[in-house]
Amino acid sequence: MERLKWKVGNSLYPLPAVLISCGDLDGIKNIITVAWAGTIASDPAMVSISVRPERYSHGLIMKNKSFVINLAAKKLIYALDWCGVKSGRDFDKFKTMKLTAIKAQKVSAPLIKESPINIECAVKDIKHYGSHDVFLSEVIAVNADPSFMNVKTGKFDFMKCRPICFCHGNYYEVGKHLGNFGFSVRKK
Amino acid sequence: MERLKWKVGNSLYPLPAVLISCGDLDGIKNIITVAWAGTIASDPAMVSISVRPERYSHGLIMKNKSFVINLAAKKLIYALDWCGVKSGRDFDKFKTMKLTAIKAQKVSAPLIKESPINIECAVKDIKHYGSHDVFLSEVIAVNADPSFMNVKTGKFDFMKCRPICFCHGNYYEVGKHLGNFGFSVRKK
Repeated sequence: MERLKWKVGNSLYPLPAVLISCGDLDGIKNIITVAWAGTIASDPAMVSISVRPERYSHGLIMKNKSFVINLAAKKLIYALDWCGVKSGRDFDKFKTMKLTAIKAQKVSAPLIKESPINIECAVKDIKHYGSHDVFLSEVIAVNADPSFMNVKTGKFDFMKCRPICFCHGNYYEVGKHLGNFGFSVRKK
Repeated sequence: MERLKWKVGNSLYPLPAVLISCGDLDGIKNIITVAWAGTIASDPAMVSISVRPERYSHGLIMKNKSFVINLAAKKLIYALDWCGVKSGRDFDKFKTMKLTAIKAQKVSAPLIKESPINIECAVKDIKHYGSHDVFLSEVIAVNADPSFMNVKTGKFDFMKCRPICFCHGNYYEVGKHLGNFGFSVRKK
């Protein structure tokens, strides 16, 4: 069968769906949900997030040139969706979603305590591409919820967090394990 | 409990794990697996992928300033892992993995026929960040395998492809559906 030629559009999935906190812990702060987020370098560890210029969070990120990526988890699915459709101009999202703002190590923006992992980021470059501004950013601190530490292995149990991914307008759990990196060449 | 302060590093997950095809259909061509990939804008549809400068595919992408993102799927898990650890300097990856190179609409690189969705991309900007070069790119054509069309709904059945995500060195299936975008504010 011939390939279908689709209308040009976003079709790279699955993507992470994460809560971005921004602003100042003791001042104006906000949360925005983004799926246009990804890792762009390993050393230094770098990420990008994209935000529309008209969003309330855009100005807060521009002001401080920093933000926090808070990973989502199944228990946060309602807040994850709600923070993506409502505006911080109309709501105190921390209060309405009963999320706890706690002090970060290095940035002014708060961490979301209910998130399993909080990644503090410093903006290095901004690119403007039509609908979105892309914040190319360095990871400057990482915080984790100790309750996800596996006491047997001493390792963080990432799957216990119940992480969420986003595909074509839908949220999904991460499912069955298929293998680890390098399995195809490892000697048995 | 206090937050754990982690060593700074990559901790944004889940991420897509995809097969990048590059080069020329009728000349030198290659496949590289990346998880450092994401969507960066909606209009125009734009994506980024990051590739280490020492990788064989890096030179092929630089030469043509274009590439194809081929989404992975459960049936491609072995090729997905293998193409990430082996080099195109040593292997014809299409031949070794029994993957079929077919003609793209707009770029010189081939599509991988066994992939459910092939996204043709034109590089717009390149940023150099330590370990990786980031190719900020516009989506210029999208191709899909017609066998994933749901004949009842007339829509592409994304979950039927069995898409793959990457978390902390492991590959996973996309799992249980948790809701669709906007569910938290939709009237019942």
